Amino acid sequence: MPNLAQQRIRPEALLRDAAADPRVIGFAGGLPSVDRFPRTALAAAFRRSIERRDVPALQYAWPEGFGPLRQRIAERMAARGAKVQAADVIVTSGAQQAITIATQLVLRPGTSIGVDPETYPSALDAFRTFGSIPTVGTRARVLYRMPVVSNPRGVGMTSAQRSQALTGRRWVIEDDAYCDLRFAGPAPPPLLATARDRVLYVGTFSKTLGPGLRLGFLIVPPTLQARALRRKADDDLQANSLSQALVEDYLTHHDFEAFAKGLRHHYAQRAERLMRAVRRQLPSWSFEEPEGGFGLWIRTDRRADETRFLQRAVRAGVSFDPGTSFQCERPRGGPTCLRLCFSSVREDAIDEGTRRLARAWRTVAGVGVG
Amino acid sequence: MPNLAQQRIRPEALLRDAAADPRVIGFAGGLPSVDRFPRTALAAAFRRSIERRDVPALQYAWPEGFGPLRQRIAERMAARGAKVQAADVIVTSGAQQAITIATQLVLRPGTSIGVDPETYPSALDAFRTFGSIPTVGTRARVLYRMPVVSNPRGVGMTSAQRSQALTGRRWVIEDDAYCDLRFAGPAPPPLLATARDRVLYVGTFSKTLGPGLRLGFLIVPPTLQARALRRKADDDLQANSLSQALVEDYLTHHDFEAFAKGLRHHYAQRAERLMRAVRRQLPSWSFEEPEGGFGLWIRTDRRADETRFLQRAVRAGVSFDPGTSFQCERPRGGPTCLRLCFSSVREDAIDEGTRRLARAWRTVAGVGVG
Repeated sequence: MPNLAQQRIRPEALLRDAAADPRVIGFAGGLPSVDRFPRTALAAAFRRSIERRDVPALQYAWPEGFGPLRQRIAERMAARGAKVQAADVIVTSGAQQAITIATQLVLRPGTSIGVDPETYPSALDAFRTFGSIPTVGTRARVLYRMPVVSNPRGVGMTSAQRSQALTGRRWVIEDDAYCDLRFAGPAPPPLLATARDRVLYVGTFSKTLGPGLRLGFLIVPPTLQARALRRKADDDLQANSLSQALVEDYLTHHDFEAFAKGLRHHYAQRAERLMRAVRRQLPSWSFEEPEGGFGLWIRTDRRADETRFLQRAVRAGVSFDPGTSFQCERPRGGPTCLRLCFSSVREDAIDEGTRRLARAWRTVAGVGVG
Repeated sequence: MPNLAQQRIRPEALLRDAAADPRVIGFAGGLPSVDRFPRTALAAAFRRSIERRDVPALQYAWPEGFGPLRQRIAERMAARGAKVQAADVIVTSGAQQAITIATQLVLRPGTSIGVDPETYPSALDAFRTFGSIPTVGTRARVLYRMPVVSNPRGVGMTSAQRSQALTGRRWVIEDDAYCDLRFAGPAPPPLLATARDRVLYVGTFSKTLGPGLRLGFLIVPPTLQARALRRKADDDLQANSLSQALVEDYLTHHDFEAFAKGLRHHYAQRAERLMRAVRRQLPSWSFEEPEGGFGLWIRTDRRADETRFLQRAVRAGVSFDPGTSFQCERPRGGPTCLRLCFSSVREDAIDEGTRRLARAWRTVAGVGVG
């Protein structure tokens, strides 16, 4: 996504310029692949929706969302082992709104929320704006986790980590944004399946059908449901009716699981290509192989000025997401980190992008690279 | 809109049942007329948007919104005398989100916000959830006003009222949701035109192009702009890209002012018809003639049990919005009030709806009515 943490720091301007320049190969931003949006299917869905007599796609709706859409979401969650009914699902304006509402339900200004050392920048922003304090570790009374495919690492939690997250009487905000994009196949059960009464589950169609639709969902413990709905209504009355109509229609007329399988294959190939290119062009850099998602989390081999590196990179015709925007605590030492997204770069541009990156890195890190 | 204040009280269930029953003539909810949505134009806009190579309609975008859309909004505001550039406009997920963000910018929990005695229920909800205290009058440090066409009264502020609102060094949240629907013609200048540095202006396309698009906008004083953008990003990253693409395309290819003129005529006729029917069927009720908008604000001739009246009405096949949901302070005495929306009732059903209403009123208010 457009990297919001960067709005207050200088790299933001660089990234905006880079995003607007078609000559720049974009490893930044976490955007899904534009060639994989199901345009034809959505166009058919639009035609059907706009022809309905009462045009619910253009009219007001209730805060909780369209009934049949909530039903389909509940069925998908049930298929993954979570005991969820349609009535438990609140359709939100993207996963971000679900995170923000969850924050308001279980956190108080001044209290800590336990996060991974590197995590989703816009969640960190939302926690901080609310006044809570993101803290690395598992000791806080509320945790934020991405158990299936994390961002930016792209890895899943081990079963020991899962158990630990669920010990004690605490709330867990489970962000499952990339659950459909686990390369090895369908996602394991969510934490929600184990602890329905303590997990606030966040899902989205942004990584699959299109983020521009701004369609996510929130499932909270029954004790929090009324407050969650009230927050949703206060925030923006309801999720976009048109997007709800389109996604509901899509899920009715198409095999979403087959579609997701195709996406997994597509992104796995791009990941493979990027990993090969980085190993070749920047052998001193290290990364874990991602199990899914949109990007590689990279540790370079030395400490460099991040903004200067980004500047050089953009000048060389390539962009990336600076590591500090994902880091809960500013690292005192240690090498520069970054996220490279393979998701929205055409496969045949990945090698060239990596070459440009290596060239830029050499200019900021000295000569002994590669 | 679906009346959110009512979610916590019993009339909510009645209104939901009524809305789902096609036999009920719906004077409730403040919905725009379904026959006036520009479906054909939006369908053409959709086709053009979905065919664009990078499909911005489905992709992530920046928090402030699409550039050309912001440009068109700024031009419309400038035409009304407000000195606004595209860069000043933040596209929001409907007017409601703009109100919520404005609230967070200029209010603190525990402080008062000055409102009209009867006002938009979802604004009252948002103020209260935030922890501020809606108070009737003009003495608070922050005011919430609908200067062109108020909801539920449907009237504009006098120039004395306008001046008074702008006296002192206070903030004004200007909700201009119905500005395109002033029956007599284009709206007068907004308060924003007079006090750019103290007005937080809220606009929307919900009442014209369709509320399901969830497209509103917020213009704040330059000193608050950075915080407003940060809030917008934290809340839901960005407004729906698809809706932005459609509205931008609509404003490019069509004459919005001509369209709005047609709407004004349409709603003025329905208003006329409803006023005639109420005068005939319920001559003891009183109301001001609305200058625009979607409804009539009615004072009945006596105090009755509001929920019981609604129950009887729905049983008789008609619905309305109970007055207390609009009232900032629960009236201690005085007659029962209600809002009757003419906006989404076909003209030929208005008389019958009013007859049903009169019948229901007689059963709760005694025999001496009409």
